[in-house]
Amino acid sequence: MSNNSSAAASEIECDFDGVLMRPFDPCDHDLDANFRLTRFADLSERTKKMPKDVLSKLMSIELKVKGQKETKPEPEPEPQQPKNALDISARGSVFTKPTTLFGDLQLVQGTDFGYPIIDDPYLMGKIACANVLGDVYAKGVVACDNMLMLLAVSTHMTEKERDTILPIMMRGFKDCAMKAGVNVTGGQSVVNRWCIVGGVATSVCKEIEIIQPNKAVPGDVLLLTKPLGTHVALNLHKWMTADGDKWKFLKHSFSEEEVGKAHSMAVKSMCRLNRITAQLMHKYGAHGAIAIAEHGLLGHAETLAACQQNDVALSICNMPVINRMASVATQCGDSFQLMRGRCPEHSGGLLICMDREASIEFCKEMITMEGPSARSWIIGIVAKGDKTVNFSKQRVIDVNI
Amino acid sequence: MSNNSSAAASEIECDFDGVLMRPFDPCDHDLDANFRLTRFADLSERTKKMPKDVLSKLMSIELKVKGQKETKPEPEPEPQQPKNALDISARGSVFTKPTTLFGDLQLVQGTDFGYPIIDDPYLMGKIACANVLGDVYAKGVVACDNMLMLLAVSTHMTEKERDTILPIMMRGFKDCAMKAGVNVTGGQSVVNRWCIVGGVATSVCKEIEIIQPNKAVPGDVLLLTKPLGTHVALNLHKWMTADGDKWKFLKHSFSEEEVGKAHSMAVKSMCRLNRITAQLMHKYGAHGAIAIAEHGLLGHAETLAACQQNDVALSICNMPVINRMASVATQCGDSFQLMRGRCPEHSGGLLICMDREASIEFCKEMITMEGPSARSWIIGIVAKGDKTVNFSKQRVIDVNI
Repeated sequence: MSNNSSAAASEIECDFDGVLMRPFDPCDHDLDANFRLTRFADLSERTKKMPKDVLSKLMSIELKVKGQKETKPEPEPEPQQPKNALDISARGSVFTKPTTLFGDLQLVQGTDFGYPIIDDPYLMGKIACANVLGDVYAKGVVACDNMLMLLAVSTHMTEKERDTILPIMMRGFKDCAMKAGVNVTGGQSVVNRWCIVGGVATSVCKEIEIIQPNKAVPGDVLLLTKPLGTHVALNLHKWMTADGDKWKFLKHSFSEEEVGKAHSMAVKSMCRLNRITAQLMHKYGAHGAIAIAEHGLLGHAETLAACQQNDVALSICNMPVINRMASVATQCGDSFQLMRGRCPEHSGGLLICMDREASIEFCKEMITMEGPSARSWIIGIVAKGDKTVNFSKQRVIDVNI
Repeated sequence: MSNNSSAAASEIECDFDGVLMRPFDPCDHDLDANFRLTRFADLSERTKKMPKDVLSKLMSIELKVKGQKETKPEPEPEPQQPKNALDISARGSVFTKPTTLFGDLQLVQGTDFGYPIIDDPYLMGKIACANVLGDVYAKGVVACDNMLMLLAVSTHMTEKERDTILPIMMRGFKDCAMKAGVNVTGGQSVVNRWCIVGGVATSVCKEIEIIQPNKAVPGDVLLLTKPLGTHVALNLHKWMTADGDKWKFLKHSFSEEEVGKAHSMAVKSMCRLNRITAQLMHKYGAHGAIAIAEHGLLGHAETLAACQQNDVALSICNMPVINRMASVATQCGDSFQLMRGRCPEHSGGLLICMDREASIEFCKEMITMEGPSARSWIIGIVAKGDKTVNFSKQRVIDVNI
């Protein structure tokens, strides 16, 4: 990275969370200047999540074994579920525990784990935590009760690297959890080829604390609470840092400063909790929400549409994207699939169905409470329909906050 | 593997769980005859968990950054905890949620994830599930409310292998959860160099449902509810299957049939839930327990000793080990550290502190309820002491059930 973009990044990260903080520099920790956390996961740019269609396929596959005499006692399948269905594509889960003494309790959980996507271990820990909490907040649950952390140290790390990086990453995770008002009480760590960071968020609550995702009505609008394009910004920044062919091709169209700013905006956005969003969803009567993550805006919108009680369809017409990242994606021949709605997001915002008038007040109050970086966008509408998503002719909104 | 041991394994696995079930054969699924699930994690024999001392070290490391002007607001540290302490070595966690309406609620959680240790994907799923539940049962909690599954598909698997193996593994996990009376409601799956399987178990319960681990008194005995040596048996079986130098050295002392039987006993033991154990811990007034896992008998005994309220020490004098596996470990120069108490176990039994007379009845009732394979052993005593473990002059009990 040239001094130029380094300076830009430094300037921006300085006021991160209103706190004076220098960007991570390996040399500050006696590590090699070329140390990069993101190198401890060499899957390159492809998404490290299982594609949604693969997961659906796996979960519906019947166990057919050639010539196997299966005499296992077979529990009765639940109605309308394939015999072996097991929905592990739902990162979040809600379980109702009927209790005689004190009414039904709800157990709301979210889990995720993945590989480092930025080089700063402290911020990486924060992002991992904010990401896991995202699924709990999407259900309107504001109070998370317990967090577990999932970690893997890379077999390719030296002892020095491990002893330096992991405590910082754990600290970032813990600090983010603290901001969410919850403690990290346990977890598990393994040794893996790639470094892994993730966690489990759990809330025990009453029904009234949960906003069911399935109550959208025609006339609602669709709100998105963080800009898209995190995945593009992260990759572009990586290419620039590596100074390889991809950057040589793109550098004629994008300045290092632009890339630094986009990366910084992505990092801020990924670190930001959706907690106040969840609070305001209650205040403004949201009709359902979903966190935007690895399946991209369209992937998660489809999940939200499919679970609706009413015969509605979601129409998406606006795409708020981190400044210039839509242009980057287009120049890359849309290998990111951003404009097709399939580009993964990391620790993304919530996609919320809400009454139109309430949504205006919601957006205003978000900014009042969290500042100008908490902008939300009306990106579409809910109309009568067949529980699908209308996704064509999107207008890109370049976001610069 | 020769036909001989294959037949032995087949014979034994046939009556697994009282159910007619053929051992997994890749050819039954149109996979290559040489397909081995355990090959999708090439860490060889070393443990894939972070050693306990490394974890302790990482968790107590202060964040010292050369020349960093840290002005982050520092939350007050909890008393007697290092500033950045975060105990993720505790796979299980108990969180108390004070509630005004209906008394304190307890949230008991366990999590673990790791790599395939056997080649049968169905049984591997079962073992992963039983293992995760182990930490919840160790706290006396019988009713688990919710399970999440953590999965990674290996980048080295073909699509065919992935589509064959994963649904079977998920089915095993789900079936085991069902046996424990709990549903798998969500989870997360990623793409990883190595295959990963694990999960999260959560129970919301009242205080009375929990057995605190810290109530041991002098005069108690130490009960162990599953034999040790799973790790040795798994490795030995792998060596035999590969027919390499290690097996050539050991085959003069151990027959294929013996290895097949030991492996089979290990698999059965790892699949078995500690649920009835947890039930009987209540009935017979256990004074605390811990699940035996990656840190070995001594490692976990030390954790149990250290958390005691009373000034007690644990003395371990018996080592029940899967038949002949202590001998294997000794012949390997104790690279397994079995006789030093540090050999990892997979989905191990519970180490329980209990009144001596009660323990006799406990052992009897375990067998009445679960059959002869549910044997427990008195392996030591609780005496006055300084919260440490006395671990010397162990007598090996060769277990053949």
